[in-house]
Amino acid sequence: MTWTTDPGTPANVIGVGLIGGSIGMALRQRGWRVFGSDSNDMTLARALELGAIDEIGLEPSAAITFVATPVTVIADHARRALAAGCAVVTDAGSVKAPVVDAVGDARFVGGHPMAGSEQDGIDGADPELFEGAVWVLTPTSDTADSAYTQVASVVSSFGAEVMAVAPDRHDALVAVVSHVPHLTAATLMGVAEMRAEEHAALLRLAAGGFRDMTRIASGHPAIWQDICRENRGAIIDALDALIEGLAEMRDVVDKGDGAALLNRLERARAARANLPSRVARPSDLAEVRIPVPDRPGVLAEVTTLAAELGVNTADIEIAHSAEGNRGVVIMLVEAANADLFRGGLMARGYRPSVQRLG
Amino acid sequence: MTWTTDPGTPANVIGVGLIGGSIGMALRQRGWRVFGSDSNDMTLARALELGAIDEIGLEPSAAITFVATPVTVIADHARRALAAGCAVVTDAGSVKAPVVDAVGDARFVGGHPMAGSEQDGIDGADPELFEGAVWVLTPTSDTADSAYTQVASVVSSFGAEVMAVAPDRHDALVAVVSHVPHLTAATLMGVAEMRAEEHAALLRLAAGGFRDMTRIASGHPAIWQDICRENRGAIIDALDALIEGLAEMRDVVDKGDGAALLNRLERARAARANLPSRVARPSDLAEVRIPVPDRPGVLAEVTTLAAELGVNTADIEIAHSAEGNRGVVIMLVEAANADLFRGGLMARGYRPSVQRLG
Repeated sequence: MTWTTDPGTPANVIGVGLIGGSIGMALRQRGWRVFGSDSNDMTLARALELGAIDEIGLEPSAAITFVATPVTVIADHARRALAAGCAVVTDAGSVKAPVVDAVGDARFVGGHPMAGSEQDGIDGADPELFEGAVWVLTPTSDTADSAYTQVASVVSSFGAEVMAVAPDRHDALVAVVSHVPHLTAATLMGVAEMRAEEHAALLRLAAGGFRDMTRIASGHPAIWQDICRENRGAIIDALDALIEGLAEMRDVVDKGDGAALLNRLERARAARANLPSRVARPSDLAEVRIPVPDRPGVLAEVTTLAAELGVNTADIEIAHSAEGNRGVVIMLVEAANADLFRGGLMARGYRPSVQRLG
Repeated sequence: MTWTTDPGTPANVIGVGLIGGSIGMALRQRGWRVFGSDSNDMTLARALELGAIDEIGLEPSAAITFVATPVTVIADHARRALAAGCAVVTDAGSVKAPVVDAVGDARFVGGHPMAGSEQDGIDGADPELFEGAVWVLTPTSDTADSAYTQVASVVSSFGAEVMAVAPDRHDALVAVVSHVPHLTAATLMGVAEMRAEEHAALLRLAAGGFRDMTRIASGHPAIWQDICRENRGAIIDALDALIEGLAEMRDVVDKGDGAALLNRLERARAARANLPSRVARPSDLAEVRIPVPDRPGVLAEVTTLAAELGVNTADIEIAHSAEGNRGVVIMLVEAANADLFRGGLMARGYRPSVQRLG
């Protein structure tokens, strides 16, 4: 069920930096003919030289188009590609709701590969970059099912784990796990730097924990202007939650409330221990078949429900019935969570069947 | 000039967990006869079994005594050892001013090896634990010079880099680089956990940066009750600075002030890049000879000045003159900073001479 394509089928990559270049390389490894464009001619020449693209240009007959530009210009590029006749367009921006809203087209599927944020530039491009990474897709009720399944299949073929999340939900989640941690690391580094001006020894005392916590402050600053502008609301919400949490922590320390402190630290330790160590294809899979009405938004509902329940999806396909007004969504999910998923689907009015594989 | 001792010279280690056990092993490797004690009999038996100590007990004739117990009982143990006749006593607690004040003895030198905070227990003990680590000592004007040089020499022999810092200064610095980062990691984990209850996918999105930032939240919670009690003032100061910094960051994001954001992130990135990557013995050394009056506190002043200026000290020795009222402090420092150090010493009224070695 993984996406297969005739050798030489055209694909577009617009913006060939680290992510776009890596996408181009991954596509070429899988037999696609990759057309690349970039606002920077030197980057484009380098992408050609490194084998990230086959040709310069935008090919209207491409079966898939990736927009991997800075987030503020994604919507423009996506709309232009759609207007040129490109069949299915997706992107790789860190913020999704404003982009998905601005494009407003059934053939556009928002995307965000959670990989490679610390490097930048075509010279860091790597066809293996997405192997084992989570690749978020953000279908909505307006997204064409065929566009979603096509994007999901292609990025799955890169070795990425597809996770479907609604656009605004994606933005709220990455504010917590990515944007605010980045701003916090920078702020902590700023506090330390201020004190270090008084006492040069401070930074020599900065052992492993501090080093780990501030590592992301060494990332490329320029993209954060766009991210903070585009995801302002979610970032402010998460920052407020963190500031409130720190103010509570301050009170706990000030009052010397050892029990409350221990409780907070124990909970954090347990939650940290439960972080999934790495996304991996589960070896035990179950096939979930979900008869669905042929109406828009069904695929978005089913796939985002899987993500909400924490159910890992290995593959997805849609079989349309001969009559045309019904279809079956076939998903491969980890066997351990198949019943959980079935329960969720039934609660939403679906009638799924589950078959354990292997 | 490194501490050398006759084989079999006795040393005491009080408290034989991870740090005490590692100290015992490091001492034994260097020919000391190590006497160990611990409030937990099973830990003590295990320390004997693992070769962290030679015998159980406290030996009053020991040339050096390390107290590596939880921070709240360090002062009691140190006073008891001094009362029993132990010549020089030091400790390994994470907070220094309350301990140094409570012991109040010229033969006690506060210490804090910046190593091994994430493991705990005698089974993690390792004689190499201190190799390349910073080991803070906190001499005051009351500290006997001979006690300081003895402790500095022994811990240097473990491969640690000795840094002298005043006790309250130490506490303020570790609040910034260790205690508050720990509490922040736990708080951030708490915010994520709260959101994860709404959406199971959140933690699957937690990629590298979040993982790095929350790693220290997986440390052992129990010791933090003591640390937060003993270092309350400095922790609250540093938490307040962080909360203020985050509130400013929130305003910058809210206003969409891209220039201010970029400035903060660029500064943080530059400061992060300047973190000393690892403490290493400098290969180019200079010998600084500092004639000193024979009065208390001179050694503390000279050594803490070195740390304040960021000058790395590889070794230290005191030569007393025959007349008895004067001496010479001989320090080996990194050659690159020898002039800086000389300037600082001259500003404090000393008349040092510098000789480049090798």
